[in-house]
Amino acid sequence: MDNDEKLVVFQPSGRRGRFAVGTPLLDAARSLGVYVESVCGGRAMCARCQVEVTEGQFDKYGVVSRAENLSPAGEAERRWKVPPGRRMSCQARILGDLVVDVPSEFAVNRQVVRKRAETRRIALDTATRLVVVRLAQAEMEHPIGDGDRLVEAIEAQAGYRGLVLDAAVLSTVQGALAAGTVTAAVHEDADRPVVIAVWPGERSAAFGLAFDIGSTTIAGHLVDLVTGRAVASAGTANPQIRFGEDLMSRVSYVMMNPDGRDALTEAVRGAIGTLVSRLAGQVGIAAGDILEAVFVGNPVMHHLFLGIDPSPLGQAPFALAVSGALRLAARDLGLPLHPGARVYMPPCIAGHVGADAASVALAEGPQHHDEVTLVIDVGTNAEILLGNRARVLAASSPTGPAFEGAQISGGQRAAPGAIERVRIDPVTFEPRIKVLGVDPWSDEEGFAEAIIATGVTGICGSGIIEAVAELFLAGVVAADGTINAVASDRIRAQGRTFDFVLWRGDIEIAVTQTDIRAIQLAKGALYAGARLLMDHLGIDKVERIKLAGAFGSYIDPKYAMVIGMIPDCALDRVTSIGNAAGTGARMALLNRGHRAEVESLVRRVEKIETALEPRFQEHFVSAMAMPNAIDAFPHLAAAVDLPAVTAPMGRRSNRRRG
Amino acid sequence: MDNDEKLVVFQPSGRRGRFAVGTPLLDAARSLGVYVESVCGGRAMCARCQVEVTEGQFDKYGVVSRAENLSPAGEAERRWKVPPGRRMSCQARILGDLVVDVPSEFAVNRQVVRKRAETRRIALDTATRLVVVRLAQAEMEHPIGDGDRLVEAIEAQAGYRGLVLDAAVLSTVQGALAAGTVTAAVHEDADRPVVIAVWPGERSAAFGLAFDIGSTTIAGHLVDLVTGRAVASAGTANPQIRFGEDLMSRVSYVMMNPDGRDALTEAVRGAIGTLVSRLAGQVGIAAGDILEAVFVGNPVMHHLFLGIDPSPLGQAPFALAVSGALRLAARDLGLPLHPGARVYMPPCIAGHVGADAASVALAEGPQHHDEVTLVIDVGTNAEILLGNRARVLAASSPTGPAFEGAQISGGQRAAPGAIERVRIDPVTFEPRIKVLGVDPWSDEEGFAEAIIATGVTGICGSGIIEAVAELFLAGVVAADGTINAVASDRIRAQGRTFDFVLWRGDIEIAVTQTDIRAIQLAKGALYAGARLLMDHLGIDKVERIKLAGAFGSYIDPKYAMVIGMIPDCALDRVTSIGNAAGTGARMALLNRGHRAEVESLVRRVEKIETALEPRFQEHFVSAMAMPNAIDAFPHLAAAVDLPAVTAPMGRRSNRRRG
Repeated sequence: MDNDEKLVVFQPSGRRGRFAVGTPLLDAARSLGVYVESVCGGRAMCARCQVEVTEGQFDKYGVVSRAENLSPAGEAERRWKVPPGRRMSCQARILGDLVVDVPSEFAVNRQVVRKRAETRRIALDTATRLVVVRLAQAEMEHPIGDGDRLVEAIEAQAGYRGLVLDAAVLSTVQGALAAGTVTAAVHEDADRPVVIAVWPGERSAAFGLAFDIGSTTIAGHLVDLVTGRAVASAGTANPQIRFGEDLMSRVSYVMMNPDGRDALTEAVRGAIGTLVSRLAGQVGIAAGDILEAVFVGNPVMHHLFLGIDPSPLGQAPFALAVSGALRLAARDLGLPLHPGARVYMPPCIAGHVGADAASVALAEGPQHHDEVTLVIDVGTNAEILLGNRARVLAASSPTGPAFEGAQISGGQRAAPGAIERVRIDPVTFEPRIKVLGVDPWSDEEGFAEAIIATGVTGICGSGIIEAVAELFLAGVVAADGTINAVASDRIRAQGRTFDFVLWRGDIEIAVTQTDIRAIQLAKGALYAGARLLMDHLGIDKVERIKLAGAFGSYIDPKYAMVIGMIPDCALDRVTSIGNAAGTGARMALLNRGHRAEVESLVRRVEKIETALEPRFQEHFVSAMAMPNAIDAFPHLAAAVDLPAVTAPMGRRSNRRRG
Repeated sequence: MDNDEKLVVFQPSGRRGRFAVGTPLLDAARSLGVYVESVCGGRAMCARCQVEVTEGQFDKYGVVSRAENLSPAGEAERRWKVPPGRRMSCQARILGDLVVDVPSEFAVNRQVVRKRAETRRIALDTATRLVVVRLAQAEMEHPIGDGDRLVEAIEAQAGYRGLVLDAAVLSTVQGALAAGTVTAAVHEDADRPVVIAVWPGERSAAFGLAFDIGSTTIAGHLVDLVTGRAVASAGTANPQIRFGEDLMSRVSYVMMNPDGRDALTEAVRGAIGTLVSRLAGQVGIAAGDILEAVFVGNPVMHHLFLGIDPSPLGQAPFALAVSGALRLAARDLGLPLHPGARVYMPPCIAGHVGADAASVALAEGPQHHDEVTLVIDVGTNAEILLGNRARVLAASSPTGPAFEGAQISGGQRAAPGAIERVRIDPVTFEPRIKVLGVDPWSDEEGFAEAIIATGVTGICGSGIIEAVAELFLAGVVAADGTINAVASDRIRAQGRTFDFVLWRGDIEIAVTQTDIRAIQLAKGALYAGARLLMDHLGIDKVERIKLAGAFGSYIDPKYAMVIGMIPDCALDRVTSIGNAAGTGARMALLNRGHRAEVESLVRRVEKIETALEPRFQEHFVSAMAMPNAIDAFPHLAAAVDLPAVTAPMGRRSNRRRG
């Protein structure tokens, strides 16, 4: 209010912030964590980033929003024929206060869907190629079928051998051949090349899908198989959530209900079908123009998508029904793509380490590096990959859902209103918080006004990690995890333990001793898994850490290290790799070599089953404490002031780690 | 009535006859042309030939039927647990008058379905085999999927390489592996062996189907893939008949109706699905136990079954959509077999010479012989194969439906009541007829009584051929086909031409001049097609003639030769080969070598398109006359008294043929 920055409120999330005049709306949205689709990355090349500007006074906030508070529509928006009332958010620049409506398709369950196509370049070597051939008309002297003539022509003109026709082509080949010039889609990722589609005339467009089926979110990219570009992206909540929030409750649902597996399979396939229609609609193609798809997911998602009972994954020996890569006909999965479309699913690594982890490994696995690299995908289970070009080890660790805000007293999913960042003053113990969807920190100007939109509704995974870490660094939490009764009105006795009150407002959000124990269990399991793999590799430290997934994108590596989630490592070698599973899926879609690569990689990955390793339990117990043996955590000690080694109330707090 | 023969009436056809005491019911039924299923050929080994005996007076005929008029049930019937009221007709012998109910499934449209499994022995080399393997339980140390372990076990224990899993197996593999011992069905007729089905425990039964999709009748056999035996047979009218009696009217229906193709495809697949259920029910298996199927049919049936528009087959260049052999998944054709079941369809030879002709060729083709052999499958089109081990030629000839009784004034399909045999006294010109479903000839005792059941309703294909031939031999019809006004009250003037009245009863059935012209056109076309192939082969006579199909089974070769339908040949070298298409289908089902054989055969068959050959027209015109140049038809002349060469009313009647 005191500068020339303008107030912009994004609906329906209500997230708001102040931006300099001239800021593109897309940048403003991104800086607030508001998801606006953008395939081209703001280069005015996809027209997917459209938003609407609400006119008039927006009462609750007193914001007067005007279309003229945006820069006038320019050449690009005319070229893309953006309809009246709509603007491309990469082109429209902020000139005054605004209320902006974002198409709400993505804002499912008020959850922030953070999966989008990463901008990696993938070499093109698609499994499905278009071939244009010319054919003579049928001759009575040579009574050979149209399909057989087409096969001969493709073999002669495009150099294939042993070509066969897919059943889906039989009924369309006559119409296609009548034109003389025929475009055929030849799928090469089979024992013999297969003609999976034919069209009359010349055709140069072919599309594929790369889908990441998450337990919470299903995200898909529509990819142009000719250029390799993702031309549309969309996501939706996994409707299986209504059968159970987490994987195990869905497995239980299947075990308890005779039709449970059918219902869950139908739910996920239905949602995928709807997303496919939306993706196709976004670029004006038919779903039937899609010729290939790659699906990745954790083992339970993978099995349910395939119509396989996931119950055996719920108990030892956690047996997969099928682990190898799968090449299937889309029609056999009931997917509304081209009738001849093919589906590829990368292999699963183990009972808890699925095709999604294999896909992460393909995109960002340790085998890409000479240095020993640790790759962690954090979810309900943490999938852990460790190694380098020479060896790759994999394990999963039962972290439980604490990192996702579950089992935490004030916990919630990452959604507007969640505390996502926490700082504790080491002297006064006063907390500062940052709320998701709200720009200013709690001690910054405008916070009180901004927070009206979202409220403070809870604390999400990154928030609880930062809270525990900061409380530890401030000495409020001892190395063994105990909350000390420091001199602060934030400390609240709770029987024989203490809470630390983080937020006082309509609701109170505190970090309880139980919360800290939950985080200790989760981070101990994650660390122990990583440490177990380090033992197997015979190493004591890792040279690089990559954090995958939505959680990995939002976690501050420093705090992850402070609480001992991840091993000690130079902070600048700890990076977020975003939706690596989605990237891996696109790689497998666009390049057959990547399919061979992931299959061979998974075969050579050394699978470590944490449940079978006594040392896992030892590491787990040791890893419950906070890391404060400074000599054992040189990189961490260099980055933060680790608390002095103390042993309050007689507890040992200076166990050596690793 | 005047001897000790007993009267037996078969219902629902009403066909009746007198049989010696002690005659098995099955033999009685067969002698009357009543279809009773019998897989084992009367050896009490299939229990498929069950019938019911109606108790009490059967009013209309005055027959008093009693269960005790049959021999008592013996050991075989007790062993097969034949239910009360039912008898195995091969075991039950006639002791007195009877009314017998035949399960009516087969008596569709009152048409006599004549397709049944021929009793050929086929060497077993099935494309699908059962493999029993033992598997260890899943181990956490080796997190490989159940399906992948199964593949490894089958490869190791049964010697396969490169084995893959069909999509249909994915959801059943877990349950099967839980048992430790697993039976897998491995389909080998693919680029790589495929596991198409799995079951827990040991299993030794596997079934397949061999179907012949005729324009009029669909007939299928359920075959035990382990023993090679046909264990059940069933047939039904092709329900496409309601869209058009003959092929061309069905093609027209498709051309005129936007949903016509769909309707016809649905009709034929639905009928097949019903037959499959019935076949499975007959032997107490589930349709899902059927792992393979072979389908043959003419090109229009073939295309409609596959969901392909047959319109291009209705006009030059009569282009097939696909001519090569097809290997498909049964589920892609909507067939209710095992979800992993496979379908094989032999290649089509040409636009009018379909997979049924290829199947006939596989079973009975000229390539089996050193002698020059002519194989004819007579239907609306005649498919003609000519050659020997060295060369095989094929053509189809547009005979039209006259041979099936269509386009004939009193014509009808072969069904009870149809005149099927005709004799003309060469002196008095008095005709004698034999009616289908009635035992005595019209001049024999009991005819008047017997005919009450059926009436005389028309004349079928074999009847009209015999009528024309006998009229020619009697001199009533001249060599050029003209009906002469001989001295008989059977001659009836019809403007400038004459009819010959064959039957006078409730209705009158005559052979008209137009009828004879229709037969001349049909037989001229058939002969011309054969002659054209003989020209191509450079031969003047054939050494062997095989007549395939239902019509071939009922036609008397002598009369076929008298009217000049087929070339001159020693009569004992003219044989009926029955449902050779069905036999070929079973061969392809039971032996992979036969698939390779039919595919290689069809590739080397020299296809002659009659429409492109001027000589076909010449032969056709010449072949319109009846053969009476005795020196040109030595075998025929030896068998019958050909009429003296005369030229009544100035017509040339002694053209040299061939």
